[in-house]
Amino acid sequence: MSDLEELRQAIVQFTKDRDWDQFHNGKDLALALSIEASELNEAFLWKNAADVNVDKVKEELADVFNYAILIADKYDLDIKQIVMDKLKRNEEKYPVEKAYGSAKKYNEL
Amino acid sequence: MSDLEELRQAIVQFTKDRDWDQFHNGKDLALALSIEASELNEAFLWKNAADVNVDKVKEELADVFNYAILIADKYDLDIKQIVMDKLKRNEEKYPVEKAYGSAKKYNEL
Amino acid sequence: MSDLEELRQAIVQFTKDRDWDQFHNGKDLALALSIEASELNEAFLWKNAADVNVDKVKEELADVFNYAILIADKYDLDIKQIVMDKLKRNEEKYPVEKAYGSAKKYNEL
Amino acid sequence: MSDLEELRQAIVQFTKDRDWDQFHNGKDLALALSIEASELNEAFLWKNAADVNVDKVKEELADVFNYAILIADKYDLDIKQIVMDKLKRNEEKYPVEKAYGSAKKYNEL
Repeated sequence: MSDLEELRQAIVQFTKDRDWDQFHNGKDLALALSIEASELNEAFLWKNAADVNVDKVKEELADVFNYAILIADKYDLDIKQIVMDKLKRNEEKYPVEKAYGSAKKYNEL
Repeated sequence: MSDLEELRQAIVQFTKDRDWDQFHNGKDLALALSIEASELNEAFLWKNAADVNVDKVKEELADVFNYAILIADKYDLDIKQIVMDKLKRNEEKYPVEKAYGSAKKYNEL
Repeated sequence: MSDLEELRQAIVQFTKDRDWDQFHNGKDLALALSIEASELNEAFLWKNAADVNVDKVKEELADVFNYAILIADKYDLDIKQIVMDKLKRNEEKYPVEKAYGSAKKYNEL
Repeated sequence: MSDLEELRQAIVQFTKDRDWDQFHNGKDLALALSIEASELNEAFLWKNAADVNVDKVKEELADVFNYAILIADKYDLDIKQIVMDKLKRNEEKYPVEKAYGSAKKYNEL
């Protein structure tokens, strides 16, 4: 079994065991994801990146993956597929010769 | 190769090809993740979950995975490991007999 | 004195008394604002709007205003002015005859 | 009339003119606020604070105030009151002698 599928199954089972599926509509899952992303950001607040507590990063990043995987499951999305597809579109939006060494957004390149 | 490792390599290569590693400190990566999570939420704004545009979900969720994977790479974190570890801790924070059917936070259970 | 000016002075004084200005660059203030906005959202997570705890809304919304006012102060922005200016631009982006009763974004109207 | 009351009336009128009140439940308003806060953060992404485009800050900060004021209006909150109340609570959480020159959270002081 692929590792993403293994994670998906473990997370879905956790949710099922607690009968939480009733709360897990796409809108609230996206909200939960955003809240976890924000908690991850809090680890860096008022600090340089170098001073971050890596254990906190680990914990909050795990929460981000947890909800991201639940959203993919909710909409029957193949995570590997959608990420590779997006990468391909980004290759067109950010061609190497224009984007090299630049932090500009594609519409400003 | 595992799915997650394959994604990691593709994303890291994309970044390397554009010499973007110079911008990718942990703090800005976390910020970028949060911005993408927010764009995912925008797909649900002023709507019921049922009315969401799934193509938009796909696209923004892919961006979320992209930055989440870059953060894991930056801190040398094993995604499968940190998610499984967190799930274990969540099992203690949310024991089935207390958490079943409840949307309360662990400190309110 | 206007009430916004009164708030600004109280908040700036609070910050000065603690010598916190050294942490308050625009980037971290914006991050802090976003984290507080996220905590406000957490009050609504897994719930209908009607079931929210209003005391929690009060508290988190106050934090949002706190950082928003600090950002305005940092960039010497006149809050009343920038909000009224934006409202004027929004009147052009969302003319009543096109936007009436619609939740669409201006570029989809 | 106070500045905040003037802003509230202008914003509520803008909303009324477009019959947008139907979309403006507390949960979606909080979500909209969070999305605007995130757009403000995007102005700082991959940059030092010093390199920010102040016009972008102005615009996004105005949007943040817009939704924050709508939320206060929705819950009949007196903005000046809730901010001053929170400042008082923060004075207890962050006493000058403990918090001076420290970026730590109150529970770590």
